[in-house]
Amino acid sequence: MEEEFKVTPWEVSGEIDYERLMQNFGTTPIDEALLRRLGGYGELHPMLKRGIFYCHRDMNQLLDRFDRGERFFLYTGRGPSGNTHLGHLMPWIFAKWLQDTFKVPLLFQMTDDEKFLFKDLSLDETRRLSYDNALDFVALGFDPDSTEIILDTENIRSLYPIALKVAKKVTFSTAKAVFGFDNSANIGAIFFTTIQAAPAFLPTEQSGVQTPCLIPCGIDQDPHFRVARDVAPGLDYPKPAMLYCKMFPGLGGGDKMSSSDPMSTIYTTDGPKDVRKKVGRAFTGGCVTVEEQREKGGNPEVCAIFKYNYYLFEEDDGKINDLAGRCKRGEVLCGECKAALTDKINLFLEGHQARREQAREVVDGMTFEGFEW
Amino acid sequence: MEEEFKVTPWEVSGEIDYERLMQNFGTTPIDEALLRRLGGYGELHPMLKRGIFYCHRDMNQLLDRFDRGERFFLYTGRGPSGNTHLGHLMPWIFAKWLQDTFKVPLLFQMTDDEKFLFKDLSLDETRRLSYDNALDFVALGFDPDSTEIILDTENIRSLYPIALKVAKKVTFSTAKAVFGFDNSANIGAIFFTTIQAAPAFLPTEQSGVQTPCLIPCGIDQDPHFRVARDVAPGLDYPKPAMLYCKMFPGLGGGDKMSSSDPMSTIYTTDGPKDVRKKVGRAFTGGCVTVEEQREKGGNPEVCAIFKYNYYLFEEDDGKINDLAGRCKRGEVLCGECKAALTDKINLFLEGHQARREQAREVVDGMTFEGFEW
Repeated sequence: MEEEFKVTPWEVSGEIDYERLMQNFGTTPIDEALLRRLGGYGELHPMLKRGIFYCHRDMNQLLDRFDRGERFFLYTGRGPSGNTHLGHLMPWIFAKWLQDTFKVPLLFQMTDDEKFLFKDLSLDETRRLSYDNALDFVALGFDPDSTEIILDTENIRSLYPIALKVAKKVTFSTAKAVFGFDNSANIGAIFFTTIQAAPAFLPTEQSGVQTPCLIPCGIDQDPHFRVARDVAPGLDYPKPAMLYCKMFPGLGGGDKMSSSDPMSTIYTTDGPKDVRKKVGRAFTGGCVTVEEQREKGGNPEVCAIFKYNYYLFEEDDGKINDLAGRCKRGEVLCGECKAALTDKINLFLEGHQARREQAREVVDGMTFEGFEW
Repeated sequence: MEEEFKVTPWEVSGEIDYERLMQNFGTTPIDEALLRRLGGYGELHPMLKRGIFYCHRDMNQLLDRFDRGERFFLYTGRGPSGNTHLGHLMPWIFAKWLQDTFKVPLLFQMTDDEKFLFKDLSLDETRRLSYDNALDFVALGFDPDSTEIILDTENIRSLYPIALKVAKKVTFSTAKAVFGFDNSANIGAIFFTTIQAAPAFLPTEQSGVQTPCLIPCGIDQDPHFRVARDVAPGLDYPKPAMLYCKMFPGLGGGDKMSSSDPMSTIYTTDGPKDVRKKVGRAFTGGCVTVEEQREKGGNPEVCAIFKYNYYLFEEDDGKINDLAGRCKRGEVLCGECKAALTDKINLFLEGHQARREQAREVVDGMTFEGFEW
């Protein structure tokens, strides 16, 4: 079977067939029953209702344990390879909803080691980017009393013993099969998955009590957590439960916003003019002429502007459906949609950038040393 | 060419041809000129005069730098997989001679991570063994002001950034070729060599100034340091110089004392009766009958008892030559030699065990945290 798309933790390319990806990876769809169950803990987040978080592993088991009084913790993170863009914020915003809904702690990992090993970046650069990216995370307003940020190279003393235990159970054959490594892979890249697995087991290791873990993240990270879940029982660690989202779309119409194409990517530090320019050049579902569009209507399904509203900037279901309808009937033109989205993004970024500046004090004071759960 | 012996950091087997090993590994013999040069810094250690430390890498360059006023540091270590035996002490005793002769600092690495990854031991066990083995190291009387012990899992925060830099430059192909890994190797074992390389570069990394390093150790460790030396220039680290010794012989007549055969191995914690029993059963170069031996003489070259004297327990060249002569002429019988060696070993162990107990206070107080050169 030929694959027209590729999704690994380090490469996402092609037109992603999310259904097939789910089957290939062996994850479970988030169905109506699970949505109803999740809705019982608080109003469902739009990313769940809209199928942006669309598949999972072991969510029902996790909720069963939660219902019996076993508190879990959340774990997500960031590979600091460049400036934060809107796509990175998406799973973090969802993680905050989970934290607020379930009142649980959250562990956030910054993988400065990973990006050093996989990218043409120095450790000084990935460390600097970690501090910079942490500003965006803190700016989202997580509960500081129950949120911890880990920087791999700083907190390695806590992570390394767990990573060793994971590593002893994973052969090169497995790493090769799961991640597609060949013999030219560097030996740090081969080892790295153990470091990404470690935070999922850290509270269990530190407390000596099995502590359930829920990881909300992009579906591209599943290879790491397949490995982590496979080895967990043999190490007396609980298998982490997973909630996976689709990739945040690029402005060029592609399936994933890419840090390497600045024009298709809105960074959290972009100014109003940058946003206006980038949104203005975005790929839409509109027709070539105004007349044609008024007559035939646009196609919101392929439109980057519509996707931005759908994924992040229009949480009101009535309004998003109304927008789709008006587009299809030719009642709204691309220019209007672009202007409206530009305003929404700029309004969001204005607030985010102010909170980001306030976060500086928190992040500058972070030493990461002596991290204990 | 068929190899009748195998020497890797994790397996030594067969009758070792040290000359061929030197050629295979590409090390340089310690010749008369180098011995004369080394003798200029202090009286040559018997292990040098007797060819027990028999080959090297870049010793002349290191001494050139030393003569120009550039101080180097010593780095050696221990893989804590069991009790310390006499064979482990050998390179440490030599390292102490180097420290005393050149008045330089020494870094001692305990690889609890390695032995966890390569042996059927838990991390708790390798860590406990590390403390236990450290007693033997401290008991040898290193200058406490210029000697530091690193425990990998404790000091990983200092080692990890260096290990990452090394790892980024080493492919699986290289690790496979150098260490003989196949696809069934665990991904921690594959990564491990970076952690053994790290201490050689630690003072350079921490001071920002190229700090030359001299590593005295068994020739079986050369694969690690070939890798470390290969990547050093690209990382602006100095290539470590090496002094390699032969393996300490087993009492059974084999080429290496093995932790896995207690009867051919004298542990530092053995009591007088253990020693008497083990030495009593040792393989010698004697004849079947007393009469035959009186007539034909013995063969000290294959005799474990003679080797023990030669390697560690008879430093006086006159006396060792006299012993060899008397053996060859049939003037001394194996029983006499065994009794004499037993007494020497027990005398040594009595003192060592007392110093080992005194070392407990030092080692128990070690936290390893916040290690800084």
